[in-house]
Amino acid sequence: MNEAELIQRYFTRQIIDSCVTLGIGDDAAVIQPPAGEQLVITTDTMVEGSHFTPNTNPSHIATKLMAVNLSDIAAMGATPKWATLTVTLKTIDENWLAAFSSGLFSCLDRYGVTLVGGDVTKGTETNLAIQLIGLVPQNMALTRKGAEVDDDIYVTGAIGAAAKAVQVLYDNQAIDSCVDEDTILSTEQINALYAPQPRLDVGNAIRSFASAAIDISDGLLHELAIICKQSSLGATLQLTTLPVAENCDMALALAGGDDYELLFTSHKSAREEISSIATRLHCKITRIGHMNNSNKIRLYHGEEEYSLPDKLGFDHFSRNHDE
Amino acid sequence: MNEAELIQRYFTRQIIDSCVTLGIGDDAAVIQPPAGEQLVITTDTMVEGSHFTPNTNPSHIATKLMAVNLSDIAAMGATPKWATLTVTLKTIDENWLAAFSSGLFSCLDRYGVTLVGGDVTKGTETNLAIQLIGLVPQNMALTRKGAEVDDDIYVTGAIGAAAKAVQVLYDNQAIDSCVDEDTILSTEQINALYAPQPRLDVGNAIRSFASAAIDISDGLLHELAIICKQSSLGATLQLTTLPVAENCDMALALAGGDDYELLFTSHKSAREEISSIATRLHCKITRIGHMNNSNKIRLYHGEEEYSLPDKLGFDHFSRNHDE
Repeated sequence: MNEAELIQRYFTRQIIDSCVTLGIGDDAAVIQPPAGEQLVITTDTMVEGSHFTPNTNPSHIATKLMAVNLSDIAAMGATPKWATLTVTLKTIDENWLAAFSSGLFSCLDRYGVTLVGGDVTKGTETNLAIQLIGLVPQNMALTRKGAEVDDDIYVTGAIGAAAKAVQVLYDNQAIDSCVDEDTILSTEQINALYAPQPRLDVGNAIRSFASAAIDISDGLLHELAIICKQSSLGATLQLTTLPVAENCDMALALAGGDDYELLFTSHKSAREEISSIATRLHCKITRIGHMNNSNKIRLYHGEEEYSLPDKLGFDHFSRNHDE
Repeated sequence: MNEAELIQRYFTRQIIDSCVTLGIGDDAAVIQPPAGEQLVITTDTMVEGSHFTPNTNPSHIATKLMAVNLSDIAAMGATPKWATLTVTLKTIDENWLAAFSSGLFSCLDRYGVTLVGGDVTKGTETNLAIQLIGLVPQNMALTRKGAEVDDDIYVTGAIGAAAKAVQVLYDNQAIDSCVDEDTILSTEQINALYAPQPRLDVGNAIRSFASAAIDISDGLLHELAIICKQSSLGATLQLTTLPVAENCDMALALAGGDDYELLFTSHKSAREEISSIATRLHCKITRIGHMNNSNKIRLYHGEEEYSLPDKLGFDHFSRNHDE
């Protein structure tokens, strides 16, 4: 099987998006962007040994690869539309490709995204990247900048479960020992790690009033620090309100990463609207603190102040938690 | 140095494109596409061991990575605008990063492209991909489909030099032996391999009348076969007219690959216009044959017919020439 046949078999489907004038199979794709919308562009990579093991279910890898990119689009309040995929493979393993392709198109279909192009190359480790383009109405994109003093701070869902799963994998040296992840992780942990739910509907619902937003891929405190820095403010969190996932501890919830929930800020006047959005979208949205005009993050558990952990989140490059 | 600092230092520059509402530093970039234009999207990857060696000059890698993507945009008759970059590194080597960054921004500036996003990850081999978005006026994109019987076939520049350089590298086992490329390749060969000139100006000039176009990244015959297949036609080439690069042989020019020249077809009535475009743009454009209504490619050297080589071009995945 050559490169063209591989692309035809595993990565080409009929296109039903009328904006896509030309899809896979030419030097480039051609797309007609609708009037009145801005493009929102993101890209995320997953590398064997860092983000998954040789034994990770290829369908899980595809689901996660889509989710991390979709989560960035969600954090902008945008709607995902078109993707390209770069795939570096060690060998042509048709079982692996079939499972990866099936997981990928299942996500693409679910979120209405069309795969419009890509590239397949050979290497000594599997390396996968998606570039995702979304649409947002003119001047409606949510950014990390713009939080104001006294704005409430919210987080979607429950946090810490993915970091807990990563911890279990590390404790079992899963990446080096090639142990089967399904045997050491619960179904809930597998889902938390590989199938996070991108909060596209929440991102869309809050974009008209939220003052700042970010997805907490690298840990809640790390991402909150970014909102603070870009908004030139500080923040106070009340830890008793933090929606820590079942069987997870506070430390993982604060700085664990890999959660892909949305962290956002908004004026107090939006509390009722946020409550009704949570109900309508069946998504827990928890108020966990507020912005202030200091230049630091302060943590309280009830009345008692806690010091910040040394590491606020995850640094992909060092594989360590960074400051 | 953490991921954010690395991105800030090596991949963030001031943005001067007024279409870029938000660049690097948020969950995603935001772009205002101009009215009346379509988006043209492509992506290409370069992997250590396949496309370059650990000793390849990082600036050459960046130049080539841009060129292969720009060439796809050229083959569509489009103008490049915005790029994202995914970088998988083995380690943070600041010398390598400085040289790669310098080569990259030199190309980005030269072609008016803005880097709007990216991702940096860690792996065991260097893996680099660019996703490039261009613009083309409504319904003006050149495709591989649309050649007609008796259309002339043209190729830009001279071909075979990059394939010759690859052959020298293979003969010297450069990838495995970690030999310094500069010591075994001439400056011309280095340039042919790592700094091909994307034919953006030619693509733009011919898009109003060319019937089909493709870039010959994987070998002239391989790419001509694609135009034939997509246009449901055959072709006849006159080898005496083929613009073979200096010190290269016909076989490399026909099926060597890595040339990144444009191959295009057009009606006979465009001959004078093409000649004046070649003069105006200082780019050799050579008529090498014509389309016919057979379903195969026939090669002539004067009156004598030559049989097709067994392999028409390069298959990136198998690292072999494919049929």
